[in-house]
Amino acid sequence: MPLAGCLMDHGFKTVALIGLGLIGSSIARAARQAYPNLQLRGFDSDPEVRARAREIRLVDIVSDDPAEAVRGAELVILCVPVGAMAAAAESLRQGLEPHAIVSDVGSCKAPVARALGEALPGATIIPAHPIAGTERSGPDAGFAELFAGRWCILTPADGVDANAVARLSAFWTALGAKVEVMDAERHDLVLAVTSHLPHLIAFTIVGTASHLEEVTEGEVIKYSAGGFRDFTRIAASDPTMWRDIFIANKDAVLQALGHLQDDLSTLEAAIRRGDGEALFDWFTRTRAIRRAIVYEGQDVAAPDFGRSA
Amino acid sequence: MPLAGCLMDHGFKTVALIGLGLIGSSIARAARQAYPNLQLRGFDSDPEVRARAREIRLVDIVSDDPAEAVRGAELVILCVPVGAMAAAAESLRQGLEPHAIVSDVGSCKAPVARALGEALPGATIIPAHPIAGTERSGPDAGFAELFAGRWCILTPADGVDANAVARLSAFWTALGAKVEVMDAERHDLVLAVTSHLPHLIAFTIVGTASHLEEVTEGEVIKYSAGGFRDFTRIAASDPTMWRDIFIANKDAVLQALGHLQDDLSTLEAAIRRGDGEALFDWFTRTRAIRRAIVYEGQDVAAPDFGRSA
Repeated sequence: MPLAGCLMDHGFKTVALIGLGLIGSSIARAARQAYPNLQLRGFDSDPEVRARAREIRLVDIVSDDPAEAVRGAELVILCVPVGAMAAAAESLRQGLEPHAIVSDVGSCKAPVARALGEALPGATIIPAHPIAGTERSGPDAGFAELFAGRWCILTPADGVDANAVARLSAFWTALGAKVEVMDAERHDLVLAVTSHLPHLIAFTIVGTASHLEEVTEGEVIKYSAGGFRDFTRIAASDPTMWRDIFIANKDAVLQALGHLQDDLSTLEAAIRRGDGEALFDWFTRTRAIRRAIVYEGQDVAAPDFGRSA
Repeated sequence: MPLAGCLMDHGFKTVALIGLGLIGSSIARAARQAYPNLQLRGFDSDPEVRARAREIRLVDIVSDDPAEAVRGAELVILCVPVGAMAAAAESLRQGLEPHAIVSDVGSCKAPVARALGEALPGATIIPAHPIAGTERSGPDAGFAELFAGRWCILTPADGVDANAVARLSAFWTALGAKVEVMDAERHDLVLAVTSHLPHLIAFTIVGTASHLEEVTEGEVIKYSAGGFRDFTRIAASDPTMWRDIFIANKDAVLQALGHLQDDLSTLEAAIRRGDGEALFDWFTRTRAIRRAIVYEGQDVAAPDFGRSA
């Protein structure tokens, strides 16, 4: 079944993907499904990933050279960790078509916009961030439906060609995403709360539980169905990707973390003094947020994420 | 298909369930499936829940009086919030058979053991805790497979009849659970880490995100697929149940929280000074924990909990 919006015209005949991991390979699969005639070109800095991409025919042409990979492409999407954007952009510059749109999928946008702008002066740059993913990595982890119903945020700088923004928007819509345009700084603040802080907390608690002296790692794993296991999913996400995000979006992440620490102290004090009413009120409010997320189609309605079924 | 272990003999002819919410109603359904001839009796303090239980024929007899509900039962299981155990035990005392085994499903065990012991002097009390659940509540939320493959921890006090422990163990095995016997204090320490702390953190972060001034609640909900939505599931759990757990298991929860806050400060400092190596090492370690949990059968192997599929 074709994805929603696949008839919209973005006018791209050739799209190049730099980085063929979870997101890059999902874009390839979704684009192949939406536009069977689109020429897809690809590159990955890891020779094993390139070999695997050729083996599974992920794109039409896998190049061993990034500059070669982007030749003829009207749209180039960098699907590499945030900290690798500058080097990736440098490495493809020689092959970039003058009118190509350069985009990316990084989880923070202001630092990436700066890096791309410096590496590719004069290029049409439209940073983007599809809010989608799983805890898996690599070219085999991707799937065509990853972006279905998820938001993709574009953060074009002032003065960027509106037609180019519309074309990129049409492309993402064809992959199943819902597109939103936002200021890069706003994006980084919002995502610090909805994505970076939750990941930081998950990484922290999984680390804490696994090196406690009072409780063994074996017990933590064995009885993880009590709640802990939920955190281990996002704490299993790609270490390189997340290292880069926390460093690139440092200020917004630390600001959000400060709020969390304040609230943690509030709840800690309520527990310490046995204030059941304060706890009950807080927990009633959080229950309502879950309902809103399910109502908005941003999570499954099935209990336990449908796992127990 | 009968659940594993359904041929084991526990010798119970009549089982009474006090509290017919998610756990009570799941026990009823699983027991019905494993032992079609078992007589099931039930009570809930909420008249609407009793009416609904009768409507869906959850058990054979729904009584309006807890003392009446436990009459003739060789096993009585209290499936009420931890803070309601004492009152529930008091309320059924007059009807309790002299040789009945009294058990429960509360999430902390030492305080519950004390409460039951005081309310029912001389009774055979074997506290229990099935490590299973969903974010839903009420008699319609239960299902027969809830305990399949999950651990159920029994915490009998020293000197409790070993035969009674074996019978209760056989019963839980028949419901699909794997049974472990543990000291009540140890249970409360382990569960503070694997269940209570994760819930506290999830409640906190969902509350934090929903009342930030910098980012709107609408944005938090809209872009929740970046990680936040995972936390909202357990933060949608029953407010009364969790209020009681944090107050009853205060010491162990605050101790685990102290460790978490130390680790959060460590990671915060690493982000602040841009120490990518420290972050990368930490995140690599947490990824391994996820693999162990999946390997041990305590979570699904499918990426994204199977949600995206």
